Amino acid sequence: MTDAAPGGPFGVRLRSAVAERGNLCVGIDPHPALLESWGLGVSAAGVSEFARRAMAAFGDLVPAVKPQVAFFEEYGSAGLAVLEDLLGEISTAGALSVADAKRGDIGSTMAGYARAWLADDAPLACDALTVSPYLGVGSLDAAFEAAADSGRGVFVLARTSNPEAGGLQNAVGERGTVAQSVVDEVRRRNDAVSEGGVGSFGVVVGATVADPPRLDALRGPVLMPGVGEQGGSLADVRRIAGSALPDTLVNISRHVLRAGPDVETMRSVVAELSHRYRFVDAS
Amino acid sequence: MTDAAPGGPFGVRLRSAVAERGNLCVGIDPHPALLESWGLGVSAAGVSEFARRAMAAFGDLVPAVKPQVAFFEEYGSAGLAVLEDLLGEISTAGALSVADAKRGDIGSTMAGYARAWLADDAPLACDALTVSPYLGVGSLDAAFEAAADSGRGVFVLARTSNPEAGGLQNAVGERGTVAQSVVDEVRRRNDAVSEGGVGSFGVVVGATVADPPRLDALRGPVLMPGVGEQGGSLADVRRIAGSALPDTLVNISRHVLRAGPDVETMRSVVAELSHRYRFVDAS
Repeated sequence: MTDAAPGGPFGVRLRSAVAERGNLCVGIDPHPALLESWGLGVSAAGVSEFARRAMAAFGDLVPAVKPQVAFFEEYGSAGLAVLEDLLGEISTAGALSVADAKRGDIGSTMAGYARAWLADDAPLACDALTVSPYLGVGSLDAAFEAAADSGRGVFVLARTSNPEAGGLQNAVGERGTVAQSVVDEVRRRNDAVSEGGVGSFGVVVGATVADPPRLDALRGPVLMPGVGEQGGSLADVRRIAGSALPDTLVNISRHVLRAGPDVETMRSVVAELSHRYRFVDAS
Repeated sequence: MTDAAPGGPFGVRLRSAVAERGNLCVGIDPHPALLESWGLGVSAAGVSEFARRAMAAFGDLVPAVKPQVAFFEEYGSAGLAVLEDLLGEISTAGALSVADAKRGDIGSTMAGYARAWLADDAPLACDALTVSPYLGVGSLDAAFEAAADSGRGVFVLARTSNPEAGGLQNAVGERGTVAQSVVDEVRRRNDAVSEGGVGSFGVVVGATVADPPRLDALRGPVLMPGVGEQGGSLADVRRIAGSALPDTLVNISRHVLRAGPDVETMRSVVAELSHRYRFVDAS
């Protein structure tokens, strides 16, 4: 369990973490093939040991750690118990936890997901949650509200790198493309933030998309997967993030985790990447 | 745990269940206000007792029971343990379980969700899972494949009733509106089904939408919330479902659950609704 998030709103805490540790976010994605290649069981116990080694390797090096919830959920309640422990360990290591759950629902049901992930007393409380806007960004308001109340954050899927995404995310509505509308609606929820400040509501945009939405006015964090093995370059990150670059978390998971199970080897990989993906001067 | 789904593909099993019990699907949505009004604790133990009473009231009356996953997830691993038990009890009662989780991700991560919900040996194995297509219907292929392999089903969100949904779901891409494209892509995955047969891949369409996608060619089941307190009428259901009417599950949750906690009172409500929402002759 993560206790009440100290230190103010998520956006501000993220800035502080990034100033100290750089802009690299590493995922904890214990999928079966990785568990096997690490010599671990394909089980909740295997996932627990995987998470322990990953945290030993980079928990104290990066500003944010992103557990991929699917790989815990596949072991049911036993997997979620491992995730509960991991979220606490991420906090203990001084990193922010980004639960990559891509939840999305409406009304009272979305409020249930918000209580699950974004409330102080929740077993699965994280620092920020990824959410999916198929039901409209407005359907996610319970998450925005819960995050604002508890100093947590939300990353809304906007434009993703996978090849099947374009048809939907580039469809055009009354306010432009779906992807741009998502960014604009999230931006509107950060509007109370003063000039030069940063909100706690962010978006997910892949580093490999040729037609990204404009992020300059977002005033919130950006979570950007797709770098490295998936083809995105440092230049892509700069191009897509624009003025949101200082508040951008570059997510790299596979490249790091494939360097395991040796903790020191993973640590070296992360140290090098952390140096490369640092967009603000060390404080 | 639900054991290996017997009796063939989900679409066929659903037809058989509907012929026997009608087209009404009831949700198990133990949100905190309901728990309190039933005199139960807002806790995993309260949720467990809520589910027990709901199953006693209607588990043997309806073809399908739909647990709303958010209201279990908010208690973390303890809540998911309750859901694991409930999924088994739904099966024991002779109903099909529809886990309303609205999961959606890409590639190996979607495969993780598919293993979580659509595999025979999964602690959370259900008969059908709701999924969300913001990342493109193609991103959900791991779920379609897992469902086909294990005789389970998938319901993809297409056009929902909530007021915030229209901007995105009515946006227009190369293949028409987002909602229609989702239906068409799901339909394509049912295309191997012969004339008059039914596939296992369905869609979610709300009963209150004025501009629903065409469902006539789907050859798969339809999950339709929004009836009753939310404003949708029997005429709306008929209009929207079209020729998919026999394979349509009309979902009503609040109206039933508010009749609790008395089991017999809920049972009477469900019996009356089951009579009203029956679109095929009793077998």
